[in-house]
Amino acid sequence: MSKQGKTAISPTREENYPEWYQQVVRAAELAENSDVRGCMVIKPWGYALWENIRTALDRFFKDTGHVNAYFPLFIPKSYLEKEAEHVEGFAKECAVVTHHRLEAGPNGGLVPAGELEEPLVVRPTSETIIGAAYAKWVQSYRDLPILINQWANVVRWEMRTRLFLRTTEFLWQEGHTVHETSEEAWDETVKMLQVYKQFAEEYMAMPVLTGEKTAGERFPGAVNTFCIEAMMQDCKALQAGTSHFLGQNFAKSSGISFQSRAGREELAWTTSWGVSTRLIGGMVMTHGDDDGMIMPPRLAPSHVVILPIIRKDSDQEKIMRYCNETAEMLRAQMYAGRPLEVAVDSRDVNAGEKGWQWIKKGIPLRIEIGPRDMENNAVYVARRDKGVKEKYGQSRAEFVSTVSSVLEEMQQGLFERACAFRAENTREIDSWDEFVEFFKEGRGGFAMSHWDGTAETEQKINDELSVTIRCIPFDYETTGAGSCIVSGRPSKGRVVFAKSY
Amino acid sequence: MSKQGKTAISPTREENYPEWYQQVVRAAELAENSDVRGCMVIKPWGYALWENIRTALDRFFKDTGHVNAYFPLFIPKSYLEKEAEHVEGFAKECAVVTHHRLEAGPNGGLVPAGELEEPLVVRPTSETIIGAAYAKWVQSYRDLPILINQWANVVRWEMRTRLFLRTTEFLWQEGHTVHETSEEAWDETVKMLQVYKQFAEEYMAMPVLTGEKTAGERFPGAVNTFCIEAMMQDCKALQAGTSHFLGQNFAKSSGISFQSRAGREELAWTTSWGVSTRLIGGMVMTHGDDDGMIMPPRLAPSHVVILPIIRKDSDQEKIMRYCNETAEMLRAQMYAGRPLEVAVDSRDVNAGEKGWQWIKKGIPLRIEIGPRDMENNAVYVARRDKGVKEKYGQSRAEFVSTVSSVLEEMQQGLFERACAFRAENTREIDSWDEFVEFFKEGRGGFAMSHWDGTAETEQKINDELSVTIRCIPFDYETTGAGSCIVSGRPSKGRVVFAKSY
Repeated sequence: MSKQGKTAISPTREENYPEWYQQVVRAAELAENSDVRGCMVIKPWGYALWENIRTALDRFFKDTGHVNAYFPLFIPKSYLEKEAEHVEGFAKECAVVTHHRLEAGPNGGLVPAGELEEPLVVRPTSETIIGAAYAKWVQSYRDLPILINQWANVVRWEMRTRLFLRTTEFLWQEGHTVHETSEEAWDETVKMLQVYKQFAEEYMAMPVLTGEKTAGERFPGAVNTFCIEAMMQDCKALQAGTSHFLGQNFAKSSGISFQSRAGREELAWTTSWGVSTRLIGGMVMTHGDDDGMIMPPRLAPSHVVILPIIRKDSDQEKIMRYCNETAEMLRAQMYAGRPLEVAVDSRDVNAGEKGWQWIKKGIPLRIEIGPRDMENNAVYVARRDKGVKEKYGQSRAEFVSTVSSVLEEMQQGLFERACAFRAENTREIDSWDEFVEFFKEGRGGFAMSHWDGTAETEQKINDELSVTIRCIPFDYETTGAGSCIVSGRPSKGRVVFAKSY
Repeated sequence: MSKQGKTAISPTREENYPEWYQQVVRAAELAENSDVRGCMVIKPWGYALWENIRTALDRFFKDTGHVNAYFPLFIPKSYLEKEAEHVEGFAKECAVVTHHRLEAGPNGGLVPAGELEEPLVVRPTSETIIGAAYAKWVQSYRDLPILINQWANVVRWEMRTRLFLRTTEFLWQEGHTVHETSEEAWDETVKMLQVYKQFAEEYMAMPVLTGEKTAGERFPGAVNTFCIEAMMQDCKALQAGTSHFLGQNFAKSSGISFQSRAGREELAWTTSWGVSTRLIGGMVMTHGDDDGMIMPPRLAPSHVVILPIIRKDSDQEKIMRYCNETAEMLRAQMYAGRPLEVAVDSRDVNAGEKGWQWIKKGIPLRIEIGPRDMENNAVYVARRDKGVKEKYGQSRAEFVSTVSSVLEEMQQGLFERACAFRAENTREIDSWDEFVEFFKEGRGGFAMSHWDGTAETEQKINDELSVTIRCIPFDYETTGAGSCIVSGRPSKGRVVFAKSY
C-alpha cells in the first residue's frame, strides 16, 4: 500500500484480476504491446529476467547431457503437411511467407513481389524442420541418442493475446531428442518434466503439479503429453511447461530411421519439450501483489537497490561514496551461484517516487542511505515480501554478511506462501453439486475429482463450467478409486480439474 | 597433413579456397545447409562457438552501460517505408508475410488464407520497429541516453548464399541507442567500433582495420558507417562488423523527439551497430588450415579433448578412471575467465579416425592417454597449432599446471600469425599499373593507395577489377598526401582497397 493508503497498482487483484495483471506487467516495466498485432516488446527488466531463466534452465539441460543448436526459422509448407495431426493443430494460426521482395505498386506504395514457389511458415514449433536434419544425421544406433535443445522465437497467430501468457511471437526453448528405444524416449520425456518441476519450484518459487494430459489436450502429433500446472492467485491453472512422448510418429513422417544393433532398419523414437516466456506471466501471477511484481530472488535481475537520500548538496559526494562502497561490498557476495546484482539509483527523481518504482519492479531488497545512516555505518532496509512501511535499520557490516541468507529466506518464503495458497484452494470434490458450486459460486481452484475417462464427460464439464482436466497426476491411482462426478461410472483415481489460462 | 601424406580437407586452400571453406565448415561440424533456401542449420559445435562469442561480447556491452531487450520479429510494411533510403536498401530482399493461416485448397493441399490487411516483413534489421518503441519511451532529455542491445535472428533474402558468410537467416546482435546530442551519438558509434576491434583481436585473434565506409557503402539511412575489416587467407577482405551514426534520420522518420534542457522540442540522435554469425566464417578463414578448423582458445567450445588409448579390455576401467580424473583436474583450471571445458571421448571409434575428427573441429589441445602414460603419471600432448605429428609426452601434473598458459600462448600465436599474414599482403601502391598487377596477376591483398574521393573513381576501380574501398582509416591523413592512382587528383591520405566477401 502506498503512503496515500492506496495500492500502487490499480485495480487491485480483488477488483479486477486480468486488468491488475496487465497493469503489473506495465508498471514493473517487464513488457508492452507493440503495434504489430499480438507481438510484445520485452523491456530490459523483463528481458533480464528471461536471461536469468535461460541461464538457470540451460545449466539443467547441460547437466542432463543436452547441447544447444539452431535450426531455420522457416518451415516449408510441405514439411508441416507430413504429419496429419500436427498440421491440423498448427495450420490454422501460422504466419505464412509468400513473397521475397517488396516493389513499387500501381498506387505508389510497395507491394509484395517475387512469389515463392512454396510458401514458408514461420515456425510455430520445430519438430518437422529439426526432424529433416535428424533424418540425415541418424544412420546407425551408434548415432543415438541425439539430445539437442534450441533457444528460439516462435510464432503462433493467436486471436486473443495477452502479454507473456499468449502472444503471437514468443521466446522459448524446445528440446528435440531421438532415441533407440521406446523406453529411453519415455524416460527422457519424464526426466525433462522433472527438470521443469524442479526449476519451477526451486527457482521460480512456483509449486507445480505434474501429470499427463488427456487425449484431447495433447500436443498435435504426440502419443503422450506431460505437463506442469501451477495455480495463479485467481485460482486458475496455468500450464507452465510440457514434455511430449512422440513415439515414432515424427520419426515416420520425417524419415528418422537407423540400423539397429540387430542389423535391421528401424524407426527411431523421439521426444520434444518446451517452456516459454509464458513463465514470466506465471511468476507475476504467482507472486505479485497490489503494489506490483515480486521477484523470486534466485531469478531477480537485481537483488538490491541502493537509494541515496541526499538532503543537502554538501552531503552528496560523501553519501554517494558510501553508497558505491556499499554496492561493491554487496557485489562481492554470492547468492544462488552468482555474484549479487546491485543497482545504485542516483537519478534526480523524487525519493518517494523512486522507491515506488523499485517496489513495482519487485526488487527483493531496497536500502536507503542518508547522512545519519552513513555516520552510524548503517543502512535502512526494506524487504519486498514485507509491508511497504516495515523498514529497519541495521549495521552495514551485518547487512552485507547476512544478505544472501535473507534472500534465500525470501525465496523460501515465497514458495511456502504459494504452496499454502494452492493447498487452501485445492479440494477433493465428490458430488456434482459441490463441483458446480466450487466453480460457479466459489473462487474455484483445483478440484480433485473422479472422472470416468471419457472425452464426452470431459467435454460436458467444459461446456457447462469452462473447466478442463489440467492433468492426470502420475500417482493418481494412489488417491483411491471412486466414481465419476458426472456419470457415476468407476474411476481409478482423482484427476485435477480447474479453469485455466 | 594426415598419415597418408594427404590433408584432412580436400581441396586445400591453395587448390580451391571457396570449396576448402565449405569443406572445413562441414568437416568441423559447424553448420550445414537446410532444405530451406539459404537457411543454415548451426550444429552443436558451431552453436557453442556462437554462445561463447555472445557471452564475451555481451560482457563488453554491459561493461559499456548497455542492457538487452527484445523487439518484434515482424515489421509492418509502413514502418519500413518511413525512411526512404532504408526501404530502398532492404525492400529488394525481404521475407514478406501476407497470410496468417493455411487451409485446404481446391486440389487438396494447403494454401495460404487469412490475408493480412498490411503485409509484414520479417526484420532484416530493426531500426524502424525499435524506433517506434523509442518514440513512446522518450519524452524528455532525462530519458536519454537509451543504450539497448538485442540478440536476435534476422532475414535478408540473399540470392547467393554461403554458410555463415551470407545466409538468408542469420543470428546477430544489434545495438540501438538514442542520445541528446550529435557528439554523444558520434562518441557511442566510435566507442562500439572500438569494442568490436578489441573483441576481434583479443578473442577471435583476428586483426582488423577500422575506418569509415565511403558514401556508396553506407548502411541505408545512415549518415556515416564505420567498420572493422579483416584479411582472409585468400587475401580478400571480410567486413566483420559495422557501427552506424544515424544522425537524426531515423529519429525523424520514427518521431523520436524530446524536450531539451532548454525546454525546446528536439529530434534525438541515434546509432546502431551489429555483428553476426558471419564472425564464425571469419574465424574459419583467418585460422583454418588444410586439416580443418583452428579454434582460438578464448572462444573454443572445448579446450582439451582426452583420447583414451585402450588396447586390452582389462585396461579399460583403469585407463578410463585415469582419464576422468585428469579431466576433473583440468576442469578445476581457469582460462580467460571461465573454467576449462574438457571432453573425454570414449566412443568406440578407431583411435586414428577419432583423433582426426577433433583435429578437423579445431580443438586447441588433444591428449592421448594409454597404459604406459598412466603408469608414468604422464599424458601425451598434441597442439592444434603445430604439425599433426608433433606430439610430446609430459608429466600430468606439469600439463595441468601449465595448460592455461599454453592456451594463452596459442591464442597469441594465432593473432601474431594473422598479423604477419596481413602485413605480408598489404602494400602501399602508387601507380595504376602496379595496382592492376597486384589484383590481377598477384594474390591481391590490401592496397593502401590514394583516392580522389569521388564515386566515379570508386566505381571505375570496381568495374575494372572488382576491387572496392574497404574503409577510409581513421588516421588516413597521417599516411601523407598524394595523388589518386586513377585520376591523379590530390588526395589527403591512403585508403584501403581490396577484393571482398
